[in-house]
Amino acid sequence: MSQFDLQAQSEELKELVQKKDVVALKRIFGELHSADIAEILEQLFEFEVEEKSFLFSLLDAETASEVIMDLEGSDLDDIVANISPIRITNIVSELESDEAADLVSELDEEVADKVLELVSDDVSSEIKELLTYKEDTAGSLMALEIVKVTENQTIGEAIKELRKISQEEDIDDFYNIFVVDKKNKLVGHISLQELVLSKRSTLIKDAMTEPIAWVETSVDQEEVAQIAQKYDLVSIPVVDSQKCLVGRITHDDLADVIAEEAAEDISRLTGSDSDEIYEKSSLATSRLRLPWLLIGLVGEIFSAIVLSNFISSLEKVVALTFFMPVIMAMAGNCGIQASSVIIRGVATGEFSTTNLKRQFLKEIRVGLINGVICGSIIVGVIWVWFGLDLGIVVGASLAAVMIMASFFGALIPITLKKFDVDPAVATGPFITTSNDIFGLFLYLAFATFFIQTLGIS
Amino acid sequence: MSQFDLQAQSEELKELVQKKDVVALKRIFGELHSADIAEILEQLFEFEVEEKSFLFSLLDAETASEVIMDLEGSDLDDIVANISPIRITNIVSELESDEAADLVSELDEEVADKVLELVSDDVSSEIKELLTYKEDTAGSLMALEIVKVTENQTIGEAIKELRKISQEEDIDDFYNIFVVDKKNKLVGHISLQELVLSKRSTLIKDAMTEPIAWVETSVDQEEVAQIAQKYDLVSIPVVDSQKCLVGRITHDDLADVIAEEAAEDISRLTGSDSDEIYEKSSLATSRLRLPWLLIGLVGEIFSAIVLSNFISSLEKVVALTFFMPVIMAMAGNCGIQASSVIIRGVATGEFSTTNLKRQFLKEIRVGLINGVICGSIIVGVIWVWFGLDLGIVVGASLAAVMIMASFFGALIPITLKKFDVDPAVATGPFITTSNDIFGLFLYLAFATFFIQTLGIS
Repeated sequence: MSQFDLQAQSEELKELVQKKDVVALKRIFGELHSADIAEILEQLFEFEVEEKSFLFSLLDAETASEVIMDLEGSDLDDIVANISPIRITNIVSELESDEAADLVSELDEEVADKVLELVSDDVSSEIKELLTYKEDTAGSLMALEIVKVTENQTIGEAIKELRKISQEEDIDDFYNIFVVDKKNKLVGHISLQELVLSKRSTLIKDAMTEPIAWVETSVDQEEVAQIAQKYDLVSIPVVDSQKCLVGRITHDDLADVIAEEAAEDISRLTGSDSDEIYEKSSLATSRLRLPWLLIGLVGEIFSAIVLSNFISSLEKVVALTFFMPVIMAMAGNCGIQASSVIIRGVATGEFSTTNLKRQFLKEIRVGLINGVICGSIIVGVIWVWFGLDLGIVVGASLAAVMIMASFFGALIPITLKKFDVDPAVATGPFITTSNDIFGLFLYLAFATFFIQTLGIS
Repeated sequence: MSQFDLQAQSEELKELVQKKDVVALKRIFGELHSADIAEILEQLFEFEVEEKSFLFSLLDAETASEVIMDLEGSDLDDIVANISPIRITNIVSELESDEAADLVSELDEEVADKVLELVSDDVSSEIKELLTYKEDTAGSLMALEIVKVTENQTIGEAIKELRKISQEEDIDDFYNIFVVDKKNKLVGHISLQELVLSKRSTLIKDAMTEPIAWVETSVDQEEVAQIAQKYDLVSIPVVDSQKCLVGRITHDDLADVIAEEAAEDISRLTGSDSDEIYEKSSLATSRLRLPWLLIGLVGEIFSAIVLSNFISSLEKVVALTFFMPVIMAMAGNCGIQASSVIIRGVATGEFSTTNLKRQFLKEIRVGLINGVICGSIIVGVIWVWFGLDLGIVVGASLAAVMIMASFFGALIPITLKKFDVDPAVATGPFITTSNDIFGLFLYLAFATFFIQTLGIS
């Protein structure tokens, strides 16, 4: 819970905006957290660009900078498109370096150049440095505002240093003070808690802890989040290739990464797109989903070709047609179960190269067990309906298809992982479609063989 | 990165365990983080219960308590089954209250009772209190070890208090000091940073910030994580119905919740189970997945029944059969795209009741656009292959089926949300199977109508 409830206040807010009651709105905004103001813009004035811009114009530069970092997708675009380069410059100056770089990267090139010209040289060079790192790496995620002390200082000196830094630089929250040696190499950290509780005359190097974990700037953000989660870190230091301290990534950014990577895996498994959750336009959403639908469509046209080649079997035993949906759906379900577990396990770090082979063998065993159970059930159903012969053909096919689907469902993401490709690219629609095609082929080939050799009809 | 690389040291470790070289192993473990030791047990000695137990027996109570909290699923079961109640009691005494309660809840009832008898009365009553809260609520997630001060103390007094608490209670990390009034009601918080930087004579109430957010004990953990993520909180205070402070939840637990809830959504969308990632046995995994496969199987048997009722159309125009996979797969894909976006959006708090209706209308528009595009493509393909008449029948059906699938894919999770049920229960296999059935029905009904009225063949 927080003090603010959007639904309860929505009528009042809408009315005040209609009346353009600047005084009342400024008073309300003055009492709200930036995240609540962002929620008002996003959810209450979703499609009303003019109202959004009007409300945003009421905010002072500091609040505006916090609100703008809470906006995403088309809401952010709407706001950015409607404010002057000078106001953006003021906002950028208020932001921490990582957020400033994020915002600048969202701007049109022309506006971005203008803003980089207008901000102070310090800010501009920090932003330019951060923009050189590849997207989704530790470098692109880190903030340059770090609080560091050298190992030979005392606790008292460190606190004095801290006072100075926090007055000058306006660092919002820091949890660990990083300790470096003379060459700026990371040698340890000291928590604020230890700083508060230790004697002021203690040397830092006697109070500090050796670093538990750190990441180089080039490390993928998913791995950064895995490391932080494994060691329960509230912030993680970022170093260059010489292990010199260059930045830090804090818990809130890491939580966003965990949520973002999970959303990406879900989107890929279902052929949607993780960005579309923030997308308000139907046309843009259609465009994001269409590629996966088209891959599915092309794949299924191959199913049609497979089917047309088995036309004589289908004509001879019409009931074979009735069980095509069973085969297709079960192949798809098995394949996506196997692949989703592996994709998720790799993403969370639960499966590493040391235990992927075991996992693969396990998936095949699981496919075997479930295939035999489902196959037996369908034998029973068809026995009653059409007779035992057809039952055995369909049941055996179903078991075979389910084992095959588990095999491919596990093999594809594991192979991708071996070649260091994110297994989430083995998207669900791709796996289900290929299982549809191979499943149908296996089913009809199987059935044709039985019909020809055993004379089932 | 951290100091430890499992793959590099796996041979040496395996050898030391084989030789039972206690001295060398204790030395190595002494240098490792508990999370690394847990990784060794989980990944290197996955199926070797005896080796796992031997290694675990080498740990002192404090390290053992940290390691055991990093274990999950069958690894945890294996260890717990092999240690004495006295050792578990020592471990439980080392843990923070929330972890102690988690561990006790994993024990057999008999062992749990024994442990609760053996630990100190304080610990035992804390654990019993925590165990009364419902699973997956703020109450079950919180730790009772909080650092709180009253508003009329000075910063200096607060620091003295802090020293005392942290010596007595061994609280590992705290980030915010909570401020309460005389009646223990939450009135604010003060960060360690402010504590370090403020003058010692300042009154807490002049230095503190009003609470940004708090949760009652009964709030669902998914909502807790949403609130913390929205306001970028490093820890969130938990209060009872009188707003009296009872506990706190920290960033590392919140990160676990975000990951856990996402894993649950993925599992439900694909018919696997979020626990199975930690499950080593094939049989247990089969059992977790089988219910979803059986639901699919029963559903697809209905498809077979639908098909058997349209046998005369299928016999008249055999080519209709060829495009059944296209219809089924595209219905499944559209439905899962629409539902997964809504399930994810609700889970992250992006979609609330204020904008779900708009999202629903958007999903139908998206289905319409993509349905018309895919339908047109299939018309072209079939025109070349079989002629325009059949092309129009299949194309029009495909478009209709895709719109229908988007409609149901969005409607089901939105309806569940309206009735305050987690939309993730509208599992993928359920949505895809029902779309398969309705899709096939719509296709064949459509085609039959055209064949009968227009005489297509």
